[in-house]
Amino acid sequence: MDFSSFVTSLGTSLIIFVVLMLAFTWLNRKPGNAVIYYPNRILRGLDPLEGRTVTRNPLAWIKEAVKASEADVIAVAGVDAAVYLVFLSSVLAILVFSGIILLPVLLPVAATDNGTQSTTDSNSQGTFKNLDKLTMGHIQESSSRLWAFLLGVYWVSFVTYYVLWKSYTHVSDLRAGAKTSAVVKPEEFAVLVRDIPAAPPGQSMKDHVDSYFRALHPETFYKSMVVTDNKKANKIWEEIEGYRKKLARAEVVYAESKTTGKPEGTRPTNKTGFLGLVGPKVDTIDHCNEKIQELLPKLEAEQNITLKEKQQGAALVFFCSKPAAVSASQTIHAQKIDTWTMMEAPEPRQVLWTNLSKKFYEREIRSLIVYGIVFLTVCFYMIPIAFVSAFTTMENLKKYLPFLKKIVDQPEIKTVLEAYLPQIALLVFMALLPTLLMFLSKEEGIPSESHAVRAASGKYFYFIVFNVFLGVTIGGTLYASLKEIIKKPSQIITLLGSSLPKSATFFLTYVALKFFVGYGLELSRLVPLIIFHLKKKFLCKTEAEVKEAWAPSDFGYATRFPNDMLIVTIVLCYSVIAPIIIPFGVVYFGLGWLVARNQALKVYVPRYESNGRMWPHIHTRIVAALIVYQITMLGYIGILRKFYYATFMIPVIAISFIFAYVCKQRFYLAFFHTPLEVACQGTKEIPNMESIYAAYIPPCLSTEKLQDVDQFEDAHSHSLRTTSL
Amino acid sequence: MDFSSFVTSLGTSLIIFVVLMLAFTWLNRKPGNAVIYYPNRILRGLDPLEGRTVTRNPLAWIKEAVKASEADVIAVAGVDAAVYLVFLSSVLAILVFSGIILLPVLLPVAATDNGTQSTTDSNSQGTFKNLDKLTMGHIQESSSRLWAFLLGVYWVSFVTYYVLWKSYTHVSDLRAGAKTSAVVKPEEFAVLVRDIPAAPPGQSMKDHVDSYFRALHPETFYKSMVVTDNKKANKIWEEIEGYRKKLARAEVVYAESKTTGKPEGTRPTNKTGFLGLVGPKVDTIDHCNEKIQELLPKLEAEQNITLKEKQQGAALVFFCSKPAAVSASQTIHAQKIDTWTMMEAPEPRQVLWTNLSKKFYEREIRSLIVYGIVFLTVCFYMIPIAFVSAFTTMENLKKYLPFLKKIVDQPEIKTVLEAYLPQIALLVFMALLPTLLMFLSKEEGIPSESHAVRAASGKYFYFIVFNVFLGVTIGGTLYASLKEIIKKPSQIITLLGSSLPKSATFFLTYVALKFFVGYGLELSRLVPLIIFHLKKKFLCKTEAEVKEAWAPSDFGYATRFPNDMLIVTIVLCYSVIAPIIIPFGVVYFGLGWLVARNQALKVYVPRYESNGRMWPHIHTRIVAALIVYQITMLGYIGILRKFYYATFMIPVIAISFIFAYVCKQRFYLAFFHTPLEVACQGTKEIPNMESIYAAYIPPCLSTEKLQDVDQFEDAHSHSLRTTSL
Repeated sequence: MDFSSFVTSLGTSLIIFVVLMLAFTWLNRKPGNAVIYYPNRILRGLDPLEGRTVTRNPLAWIKEAVKASEADVIAVAGVDAAVYLVFLSSVLAILVFSGIILLPVLLPVAATDNGTQSTTDSNSQGTFKNLDKLTMGHIQESSSRLWAFLLGVYWVSFVTYYVLWKSYTHVSDLRAGAKTSAVVKPEEFAVLVRDIPAAPPGQSMKDHVDSYFRALHPETFYKSMVVTDNKKANKIWEEIEGYRKKLARAEVVYAESKTTGKPEGTRPTNKTGFLGLVGPKVDTIDHCNEKIQELLPKLEAEQNITLKEKQQGAALVFFCSKPAAVSASQTIHAQKIDTWTMMEAPEPRQVLWTNLSKKFYEREIRSLIVYGIVFLTVCFYMIPIAFVSAFTTMENLKKYLPFLKKIVDQPEIKTVLEAYLPQIALLVFMALLPTLLMFLSKEEGIPSESHAVRAASGKYFYFIVFNVFLGVTIGGTLYASLKEIIKKPSQIITLLGSSLPKSATFFLTYVALKFFVGYGLELSRLVPLIIFHLKKKFLCKTEAEVKEAWAPSDFGYATRFPNDMLIVTIVLCYSVIAPIIIPFGVVYFGLGWLVARNQALKVYVPRYESNGRMWPHIHTRIVAALIVYQITMLGYIGILRKFYYATFMIPVIAISFIFAYVCKQRFYLAFFHTPLEVACQGTKEIPNMESIYAAYIPPCLSTEKLQDVDQFEDAHSHSLRTTSL
Repeated sequence: MDFSSFVTSLGTSLIIFVVLMLAFTWLNRKPGNAVIYYPNRILRGLDPLEGRTVTRNPLAWIKEAVKASEADVIAVAGVDAAVYLVFLSSVLAILVFSGIILLPVLLPVAATDNGTQSTTDSNSQGTFKNLDKLTMGHIQESSSRLWAFLLGVYWVSFVTYYVLWKSYTHVSDLRAGAKTSAVVKPEEFAVLVRDIPAAPPGQSMKDHVDSYFRALHPETFYKSMVVTDNKKANKIWEEIEGYRKKLARAEVVYAESKTTGKPEGTRPTNKTGFLGLVGPKVDTIDHCNEKIQELLPKLEAEQNITLKEKQQGAALVFFCSKPAAVSASQTIHAQKIDTWTMMEAPEPRQVLWTNLSKKFYEREIRSLIVYGIVFLTVCFYMIPIAFVSAFTTMENLKKYLPFLKKIVDQPEIKTVLEAYLPQIALLVFMALLPTLLMFLSKEEGIPSESHAVRAASGKYFYFIVFNVFLGVTIGGTLYASLKEIIKKPSQIITLLGSSLPKSATFFLTYVALKFFVGYGLELSRLVPLIIFHLKKKFLCKTEAEVKEAWAPSDFGYATRFPNDMLIVTIVLCYSVIAPIIIPFGVVYFGLGWLVARNQALKVYVPRYESNGRMWPHIHTRIVAALIVYQITMLGYIGILRKFYYATFMIPVIAISFIFAYVCKQRFYLAFFHTPLEVACQGTKEIPNMESIYAAYIPPCLSTEKLQDVDQFEDAHSHSLRTTSL
């Protein structure tokens, strides 16, 4: 890629961004689009237009994003969103502090060196001079100017330690603050108990659990809810819900048909067979009503059976006070510690019910299998990416697809293609993966949605770093080099060091594409907007259906964090080799912070709240990226630039490990468990335990009739109304 | 070593054993020796002679040892001794079950193979035929008879899994049983809190701790005892105790002088200067009395200062019930988890006070440094041992010390020397180490004696396996091979496999020496007996001094476990190569079990009780020895015997790792913490909390006057008499 194609790429990205911003400013103001641009505010019952008509400024959203306080963000979007913003601002701070020193120092040091032109260190074959002059590749071998770059690594490292320490402390406080809030959260009074051994003969699981906890926590135990196998009940319940939706839709259709010519209207009909295409024709309204009437007693019967006979070896145990629940969740209960395993209960909305009853060793085996599959996926995905990145150079395209020659040889198309082809190939590959990883993570037997998201996010991170970063950097040579690496593992440092500079411009373009086009699309929400309008026009009949069409998603941390982490890794690794990447990183995270604030305040609705539980993982990964960076620099400066003082880099690598260890010791467990100090600080008054208990009843088991099932074998609680505190 | 020297070695060992046994039978019966042979019984106030005069049978002690039940052992010697016996009997069971199959199968398989004589596999150069015929070295390469040996490894492995699982379950029950006993143990109501942050200005540490725990455990907190820096008070107290002993001794001397000729007696005198050799002469009794009178008010003043001003950042916190203490010890208290770290309190008698106030990161750094030193020690000790084992072959002795030639050439001396020299060299080296390791372990900042013993035992185990087992086996070639191994780590398997058979007879002799001479000395207690009689005759004047002279030690687990573990490792590793070692192992552990029972019931007095906390480590080490054995066999059968089905060994290695993992998951944490289930089972009645509290007051701070210090700043408790439950 030569310099002009780099500028073209930046230019087109910028134009797309400006267009999207203008589209956003224009679309944003139409009241019909409010549900797309302000769904969060609408769902909270606020006026989406409030304070909007006065400004026609396309940058008004920036002012609003900056003005909001962190407390506002937490109130609207939860601690998780606030932690995501802390992540963005931390990285921003690291890059700004690094850039303040590195840019004015390293660029002149590199530019004024009149050393031999080492053209091999760049893929530009001498045509990319202007940028090349500003990189470390321009410095003579063994030059004492390399000291500046070595000290640059130290500066970046210490800035990172400082910022990360501050951020970890801040996030830790945020988490403690959220846990001490006066709002009663059901999960704070509940403990999830798994691996319950079989009940003694003649006793139901429910009684078994009750008697166990009543004996161990005589004063604080409230009651228990044994997890049941709801599969069948759930199926019936979903069937009923399906018919209800159909009924509502048919009634609207019928009502609409009335207003036109015929006052009696036409009753909608459908066929009962496969996909409504075959089978006898029936009146939809009557048919749905019949079906619902038919299924309701069935559901009730199934509910009874489920509660009585399908009790599983897991339970939610409720305690009368937060400290009691916290203590219980951290205390080993049984002498055989693979039974009665305790943990803090997840929020009701994010419990993965079917995973709860999976046994201890089953979970371990599932995890092992999933790791195996992920490992294979990482290796398997590497092949097409390496192939694409080797194939999509202009020369190869012309060589293998000669019929493209004419198109490709036109200078404009050539430039654009050259600039974007590899990146687009990459993005397409990436889009296919998250669903698979999320599915795999849930299969591990994880009890909550947020935990599954964390697990998927970790997998995605490893995937993306190995495949995109290493894949692109080492590229086609990786498989050839693999033999070499296995023979001599230290080879990887040399290989990475020598391959990095070659890919500098690729990653510069990648980062620019990501922030201009990525954030442009994110902010303008063009895709959800178009889908919503299409759905509203052609599909939706009832109010509920319209609402479903615009219902906003959440942040999607499973892919958002790893994608940002990839940029962190890239920018860190190039920060000293080609400091010119730092401003790109600053723009990425600065713009990212603004956009994310806007989306948090106005658009996304969190599906769960994990109180920043993601942070320790993010922290560890940033430190890991830092260590990769330091090791790469050791290899690059020491072996390729033949600067033997590079051994001075080894202490800073050791410091990184110590930093990671100290942070883990100081902060991690407080993210894993709730400290007693925090649990005791909250409100002291006893909340309505009944409503806390009811929050965990799955919808397919909750009917008004259920409360009459005041029987002995009931998996939920027979003391539903008898016991009261 | 040829066959005759092997037999000589066995024979002499046996003779020594028989002599020692006869000495034991004879000495045992003398009433004056009762304090040496029955100190445990005497201290418990039992009649040592009870039931003894009727039997003159030299094997009577065996009957008594077998007759006692496990409950008896626990009652007398504690759970730790019982667990040690479980360890011995488990290994015995493994060896017996293995031997039942391996001996009748493998010996004929080996003996009847008329393959090529591969003399290189034995250090006997063809003179050691009779034993050689019974080892695997006798089997032809790639012979299908090797299947029998391969299956032998499987049999040993599965026997080990089975026995270890049973034993772990049994020990786990023993531990739970001990923790639920009705006896009130102070440590069950106390929690050790370390890393307490600095108290807010104007508040003493004591108030800081009290207010913190009163807030978090309003209903169950009893009171706290802040750890103080007792160094100075302790010094004064020890000085006083010294003078008291001196006084008692002087009074006895004075009284004795009276009974002879002069009725007025001679008052003993001494010099006050260095070692009683210089300085003015004084009357000892008066001098001591003066000194004591002078020091007592000093001690009191120092006690006050200590309690008020020398409060440290650690405390013992007492709770009103066992479950409350257990819960508190397992619950994270602070948001910053490197502060207010909680753990179950150690027994009062085994608290290492000076370590309690060491800070979290200080402890980590100390551990790191200690590990470094231990690593160096392991490497450093290897050099002399390798040197000795190379030097002490007959040829080398004659070569380097020609003046010895005449002595050495006499056949009897030659045989004995050849049989014992290397082993004795080894034993001497071993004797110097435990003290160093114990000192290092305490320097790590460990809070209790039993934990320090465990840590020292672990270090000793690594040491002994690396140095004795690997050192002797690979011997002089190790350092030459080290380069090879670093280049290609898989080389170690080949090296170990090829070196093992050469050392078979060395280890046979080593095991025999250990059990015949070791157990002979252990049982006959010749060394303590001689020391006691010498002391009694020449040194002891007062009753207390005599008692001190015979006071029994404890089992000394820090060296006992690793020494036995070395034998386990040796016997396991040779079990298939030379199954003839199994009977030796059986005798070692069988005799060991009998002797240990005898000593537990009659001799040793435990210094602490850790309720079998050692077992998980022992379990892990037996599994580790099994894995070393399996890997060695893989190398030996696969590479050296060129039997390519040896890959069938890989699954069993994987199973070993899974077994270790499952055991850890199922049992380990219940050894680390006390499960709530166990804590709740004990007695429900509230014990005398005052006496529990008083049990932890260090002797140098406990005087009657102390109770008057009912002041605000008191590090112990100002609510000593005001608060009562």
